[in-house]
Amino acid sequence: MTTQVIMLNGASSSGKSGIARCLQAMLPDPWLTLGTDTLVAALPASLRRGDSGISFGPEGRVDTGPAFRALDVAWSQGIASMARAGARIVVDEVFLGGPASQARWREALRGLEVLWVGVRCEPAVAEGRELARGDRVPGMARRQAELVHQGVRYDLWVDTTRAEALECARMIADRV
Amino acid sequence: MTTQVIMLNGASSSGKSGIARCLQAMLPDPWLTLGTDTLVAALPASLRRGDSGISFGPEGRVDTGPAFRALDVAWSQGIASMARAGARIVVDEVFLGGPASQARWREALRGLEVLWVGVRCEPAVAEGRELARGDRVPGMARRQAELVHQGVRYDLWVDTTRAEALECARMIADRV
Amino acid sequence: MTTQVIMLNGASSSGKSGIARCLQAMLPDPWLTLGTDTLVAALPASLRRGDSGISFGPEGRVDTGPAFRALDVAWSQGIASMARAGARIVVDEVFLGGPASQARWREALRGLEVLWVGVRCEPAVAEGRELARGDRVPGMARRQAELVHQGVRYDLWVDTTRAEALECARMIADRV
Amino acid sequence: MTTQVIMLNGASSSGKSGIARCLQAMLPDPWLTLGTDTLVAALPASLRRGDSGISFGPEGRVDTGPAFRALDVAWSQGIASMARAGARIVVDEVFLGGPASQARWREALRGLEVLWVGVRCEPAVAEGRELARGDRVPGMARRQAELVHQGVRYDLWVDTTRAEALECARMIADRV
Repeated sequence: MTTQVIMLNGASSSGKSGIARCLQAMLPDPWLTLGTDTLVAALPASLRRGDSGISFGPEGRVDTGPAFRALDVAWSQGIASMARAGARIVVDEVFLGGPASQARWREALRGLEVLWVGVRCEPAVAEGRELARGDRVPGMARRQAELVHQGVRYDLWVDTTRAEALECARMIADRV
Repeated sequence: MTTQVIMLNGASSSGKSGIARCLQAMLPDPWLTLGTDTLVAALPASLRRGDSGISFGPEGRVDTGPAFRALDVAWSQGIASMARAGARIVVDEVFLGGPASQARWREALRGLEVLWVGVRCEPAVAEGRELARGDRVPGMARRQAELVHQGVRYDLWVDTTRAEALECARMIADRV
Repeated sequence: MTTQVIMLNGASSSGKSGIARCLQAMLPDPWLTLGTDTLVAALPASLRRGDSGISFGPEGRVDTGPAFRALDVAWSQGIASMARAGARIVVDEVFLGGPASQARWREALRGLEVLWVGVRCEPAVAEGRELARGDRVPGMARRQAELVHQGVRYDLWVDTTRAEALECARMIADRV
Repeated sequence: MTTQVIMLNGASSSGKSGIARCLQAMLPDPWLTLGTDTLVAALPASLRRGDSGISFGPEGRVDTGPAFRALDVAWSQGIASMARAGARIVVDEVFLGGPASQARWREALRGLEVLWVGVRCEPAVAEGRELARGDRVPGMARRQAELVHQGVRYDLWVDTTRAEALECARMIADRV
């Protein structure tokens, strides 16, 4: 069966978005890219600051409250429906909850053909890239580097430390 | 029954996004804002240029091809699922197909409580705002001004020609 | 003598940028638009947060430290040199220091033909537009509304409360 | 004498902006980053499309007309004045004219202490990164890769093909 969803999970500044855009350019069918950043941009401004939403604290700490988590559940079910309706989707995600996040997505995506991809980058390198991007809260890259992968199971790992986004995308495209 | 989806339909530069952000700030529950711009940003770059995707031509002409339209159908079904899963959603849309676009959304949103809002702005004023934004293809505002409303039925009209986004949002919020 | 610099001074969310883009579209010669936002984007990330740079606090409070102010002085001298070298420039500014800011710019722009324009908007309306933009710290619009104009002298006032950016730009263009 | 201007010249997608942000984070004094992108953003929208401005054509072709070139000369003189007034500046540039561009900048920056840095990236790698960015006209990276360095003289070369932006920035910072 052909892949319907490519789930890219990795820390902030690990290089997921670049891989997603390369996949979109490289795969013969049209694929949408949607992810955490899309959801965060869709929130009311107050939920990007307050306790019940998502907050970006010092040293790269990210906290989520009940209102954000409820929307996140609905969001993942919506993504699954898009895929069931025929859209191929690259999901650009950060499993802040590790295996619990994966379980939630697995539940939402039930019945769909999903390729689970772990996107890894050595923390020191990711931290340098976070600095080079200049628009991210410093510290997220390092803090999340291990965290988001603990206890998560993948079909495929890619490592952007020494491989370009395009090479990683090729490895993934070969499995689609 | 309480409103689950607020559908804002209006031409480019008619002021929908500003109304959506005011609604998010004003309504007691958290509402997501998603729309055409979100979908376009999620497309492969090639579909934002090519014949099968969406193309922004001279004089504000917007054409959509089969690949875009198929993704658009899946997208609207995904939005509906998010709402069914409990997320309240402001949809920021441009019914390029007029009543056919509305019929498609009506079908996708079946069973949900939807408030249909037409966002109008006098073409000459919208055109000036398009110029003031500076990041839109000139001509879309005028070209779409009438087009997107022809044959579409609403619960409520708002007109941004002389009313601020905040006032329009208040009128909508009163109906939610 | 023909105008070389159009200085737009007004509070955050008073509508300066929209006027600037309309002026650029309307004036026969090519004009650059540069301003506070350009300078802030050019700063090291640390100066957009720290005490010596510029900081955006709660309730719309903006504080500037010595490092920012030194760069700001150099910035205004650079803008003046561009104008002396033949570039026509719309400066999109916020005189946080009121007359002291104007004196500093007057000194930098010495010998150039400058049109000083005050951009006003009723605080309640500006506050609504700030909400509608969604990307500004809430409170700046109201806090700065009076502050930036106190003791400042203009060739021309425009008021965006009820006039569109395009109309304001026309009034300015008539004086260039 | 201490360096007042760091001139980074390299093709589109060679990694200059990331290096600039790392330099800003790493150098003890505050440095501004300004460059071609800043100037292009300051142009009237019509000059980003028309013959007299700058146009981004198929296959990554970039053409500049007389109006753009006149503004570019004034721009470089303004940057030089900012540096003379005490602002340290990283200039993020693309010498589309090769040695003529360098001669023009050398003339503008006369009397200032400038570190000339060539930023190189293997064309195939730069092309992949262009794809991964997703917001650039495809083809610029490859087309400009050699072109912008031909006949240009540097104090220092950095190569982002296998070195991270942070490492390149360290090599540059050691020379400041």
